[in-house]
Amino acid sequence: MTQKLRRSALTLPLATLAAAIMSVPGAAPAFQPDSPFLAYQEKNKDKWAEEDKQINAKLAALEKKFGKKPNIVYILADDVGWGEMGWQGGGKHRGTPTPELDKLAFEGMRFWSSYAEPSCTPSRIAINTGRHPVRTGLLSVLWPGQIEGLSAEEKTVAEVLSDAGYNTAMWGKWHLGEEPEHAPENQGYDYAYYGMWNGAPDNWPSSFDMYRDAPNPMKAMFYDFPGAAEYKKRTGIDLTEAAFVGRKGKGRKPVEGVAGTLGPDRQEAFEAESIKQITAYVKDKAKDDKPFFIYWATYTQQLQGSKAHHNDKHVDKVNAQASEMAAHNAHVRQLLDTLKAEGIAENTLVVWISDNGPMYAFYPNSGYSWLRGGKGDVLEGGVRVPAMAWWPGMIEPNQDPVDILHLTDLFTTAARLGGALDKVPNDRITDGVDQTALLLLGEGHGRRNMMFHYSGGVLGAIRYEDFKVHITEGHGGLPGMDFYNVMRDPGEKFGQLYPGLFAVTPIQIVLRDHMRLIQKYPHRVSEVTPKGAELTPHD
Amino acid sequence: MTQKLRRSALTLPLATLAAAIMSVPGAAPAFQPDSPFLAYQEKNKDKWAEEDKQINAKLAALEKKFGKKPNIVYILADDVGWGEMGWQGGGKHRGTPTPELDKLAFEGMRFWSSYAEPSCTPSRIAINTGRHPVRTGLLSVLWPGQIEGLSAEEKTVAEVLSDAGYNTAMWGKWHLGEEPEHAPENQGYDYAYYGMWNGAPDNWPSSFDMYRDAPNPMKAMFYDFPGAAEYKKRTGIDLTEAAFVGRKGKGRKPVEGVAGTLGPDRQEAFEAESIKQITAYVKDKAKDDKPFFIYWATYTQQLQGSKAHHNDKHVDKVNAQASEMAAHNAHVRQLLDTLKAEGIAENTLVVWISDNGPMYAFYPNSGYSWLRGGKGDVLEGGVRVPAMAWWPGMIEPNQDPVDILHLTDLFTTAARLGGALDKVPNDRITDGVDQTALLLLGEGHGRRNMMFHYSGGVLGAIRYEDFKVHITEGHGGLPGMDFYNVMRDPGEKFGQLYPGLFAVTPIQIVLRDHMRLIQKYPHRVSEVTPKGAELTPHD
Repeated sequence: MTQKLRRSALTLPLATLAAAIMSVPGAAPAFQPDSPFLAYQEKNKDKWAEEDKQINAKLAALEKKFGKKPNIVYILADDVGWGEMGWQGGGKHRGTPTPELDKLAFEGMRFWSSYAEPSCTPSRIAINTGRHPVRTGLLSVLWPGQIEGLSAEEKTVAEVLSDAGYNTAMWGKWHLGEEPEHAPENQGYDYAYYGMWNGAPDNWPSSFDMYRDAPNPMKAMFYDFPGAAEYKKRTGIDLTEAAFVGRKGKGRKPVEGVAGTLGPDRQEAFEAESIKQITAYVKDKAKDDKPFFIYWATYTQQLQGSKAHHNDKHVDKVNAQASEMAAHNAHVRQLLDTLKAEGIAENTLVVWISDNGPMYAFYPNSGYSWLRGGKGDVLEGGVRVPAMAWWPGMIEPNQDPVDILHLTDLFTTAARLGGALDKVPNDRITDGVDQTALLLLGEGHGRRNMMFHYSGGVLGAIRYEDFKVHITEGHGGLPGMDFYNVMRDPGEKFGQLYPGLFAVTPIQIVLRDHMRLIQKYPHRVSEVTPKGAELTPHD
Repeated sequence: MTQKLRRSALTLPLATLAAAIMSVPGAAPAFQPDSPFLAYQEKNKDKWAEEDKQINAKLAALEKKFGKKPNIVYILADDVGWGEMGWQGGGKHRGTPTPELDKLAFEGMRFWSSYAEPSCTPSRIAINTGRHPVRTGLLSVLWPGQIEGLSAEEKTVAEVLSDAGYNTAMWGKWHLGEEPEHAPENQGYDYAYYGMWNGAPDNWPSSFDMYRDAPNPMKAMFYDFPGAAEYKKRTGIDLTEAAFVGRKGKGRKPVEGVAGTLGPDRQEAFEAESIKQITAYVKDKAKDDKPFFIYWATYTQQLQGSKAHHNDKHVDKVNAQASEMAAHNAHVRQLLDTLKAEGIAENTLVVWISDNGPMYAFYPNSGYSWLRGGKGDVLEGGVRVPAMAWWPGMIEPNQDPVDILHLTDLFTTAARLGGALDKVPNDRITDGVDQTALLLLGEGHGRRNMMFHYSGGVLGAIRYEDFKVHITEGHGGLPGMDFYNVMRDPGEKFGQLYPGLFAVTPIQIVLRDHMRLIQKYPHRVSEVTPKGAELTPHD
């Protein structure tokens, strides 16, 4: 009790500020942003209030036209680096063409300053909960067999939108736990069809014993998997039942042609089945009274290849990633065409974003980034990712705003668009910022001026305006701080202390307020993860 | 004589091939490409012959409409890196907005695979002669006071086009020698107005003695120069007469407001005067019987800043490069608007290209690149540069071809467009490839599949198709070869020998043929540069 009081005392000014800004008379208690955003909000309150009027008018007109809230489709790509899209100089120039994704980008918004968490599970937590993973008790990438997962106490975007009357569906890579309570159907998704419980294609065993006899273990692993029957004989696990297509549940069944070998064919069949289901779902729900939310966590952007797209124009014919990305590109086109054909494109926001930077361990069948570092790093190459937003009639075409976007923002923006901000829990911090103004009013209307870059349980870096400081340990008592002006130097080539010194005070204030609010709203503690294990950096 | 015969014998098959392909009955002897291009040409002869018919028809129709050959404007920017344009994720995202250059890019062709020589003088040789500098006897960056320069025996693009009846004019940074025979007016340019003889702004003395008394020598050097009178008193050199505006000559006079301080004001005044003259020239020549060729070697893309553009939208206000680039951006708009207003845009090819990668020594007031290395390197960061081509009605808008372009190609393409290929000397090798087909027919019609990357007099790297091999010295007798697949790995992060081995044989054949043709057409030997001095890498 004493401790609780002390915490409250420490954060009193902020709490008061929050109450003043966020609570609207008569409305449900508003959600709780992190303290630096409260300060930024306070600074911009008049401007934002004016913008909100415009946004409300636009959305009200749309709702009147379509008779419901807008549909929302979030496509979370896997390990695609900043620079890989064709519009970024990758695409066909790297032998990995993305023409349809580029069309989407030029018909909508291209984000050059969009960010994710540094790795897979953390980014999936971020987009689903609007919170930095460190707050949720689940900090790192899950491996097969781990019993941790997304806590039932966390409220996902699917739960928030379900509460507001949305149909909700999920396809692809879950990677948020494999116990029953972690499963998407128990986390707010009415429908879920997923190909990966965890980070690896399928539940393959964590030891590679089964590959010992293969002439080339790596080749066997990725291309010559002996098939489900042999797999079951050796491991006792029935992939056709248990793993690849998810546990049996509502709306899920093993896919014909999929439950066979664990190679490119199977992955490709899964992906083809997914887009077939997605477009069928869109057609089915287009005329539904309720809007829909789709979370498509596609994971076929590297490694295995697609036979169907092997000979596409510009595809690097000796590279698996190239053909796989081409397949994904074609699937996105199918989705957009379906939205148009059903006459609901103007009532559907589509956001495409990558979950983190490239996983160079798979090079040359990996993603790629122009920036320093890759997946697992809080360097720009790990966290700055390509993203695009598309919404004909609502998002002006051919925009490339300088504004910062973070993956957690998609949670809050979805809640805003779904009229469900009051469904976001207010007993915890939500890091995501409502970016509806950026989408609908364009450049300069973003509502984020800083970011925390957590690396597992460790605060690895802070971005504040143009500055970024990397925090490192052990410098004979001096704090280890490497400053970069990541606006001028996105490649983090020129670390410097001198100009950074001018940014120390504002950054320290941001950090202090952030820490104070954690005292008031402590991180969830996993009941499973051993104490201390969650502090390992770079999971 | 014996040696000469031996050389001929060695290259006989290639020479025969050249004669067979290049000579057209009744026409003047055609110019001499490098041997690898002859092989590539032989392979594609039927396809190219078909394309040439289409090109000829397009150009004939245009000539009929305008009554003359097309005007050509080459804008050579200074030390702008690959990634700096807005369309490449730089621009406003780096606080250095390039909106007008981006418009140009989207109205025409954006080249993501365009290349220059690794430094300043070499690139100026390349665009002017169509030849790698190593062939011309002038290998490295010139410094004030050096008596070397572009040989009078070299034939510049201005000379070639003059021979074909063009008006020719030059603005900006010459940097090809400061003796009378090196001056642009003696190298084919009817009109020349240049602000830099050499690489540094103005002919400032090579010793910094004069700055010793300044409170902050570096600051004094760039911002607080004591003025021309003081400069003359200390050094005996009269800047107002001698240096900044060039020696007195046809069409040149000191600019009011320019001949004063050697800081941003003076540079800005020079640049403003240049674009004023350029637009006046365009207006004057628009209705002329003769077409015009403009070589605008603008050098104001870094370092000093522009007061006039300091507060432009998106400009990083504490960065000199940012405002300077904004000024250049606005000047390019003035040029394009003038071309449109005069009704000659459809008869004018405009190409914008940088001379090499960023000069990081000037960071943060330097350029920037997403790639590894910078100015002076044959790494991609040194030689891969942004480039755009614009020609309303002739170049289809919004193209981003994968084809390779090299700075030398601009020479040959200009000769082709001016109907002056027969004016290109055939007693020497011309490295530039005619890229008219790429411009007019689009992606897939480029005529280059390889490049030599010379570093001074040393062959530093060879690009062949997607592969690049860096050649280094001293590996216990083994050749030092680092292979990169620069299509998949433009950042040269993953050097590898294994896949590169498959490229060794074709690359060695290319190299052998290249060397054989050098035996037939030896490099020009400078009568000034001491023997051996030209072999220093990274000048």
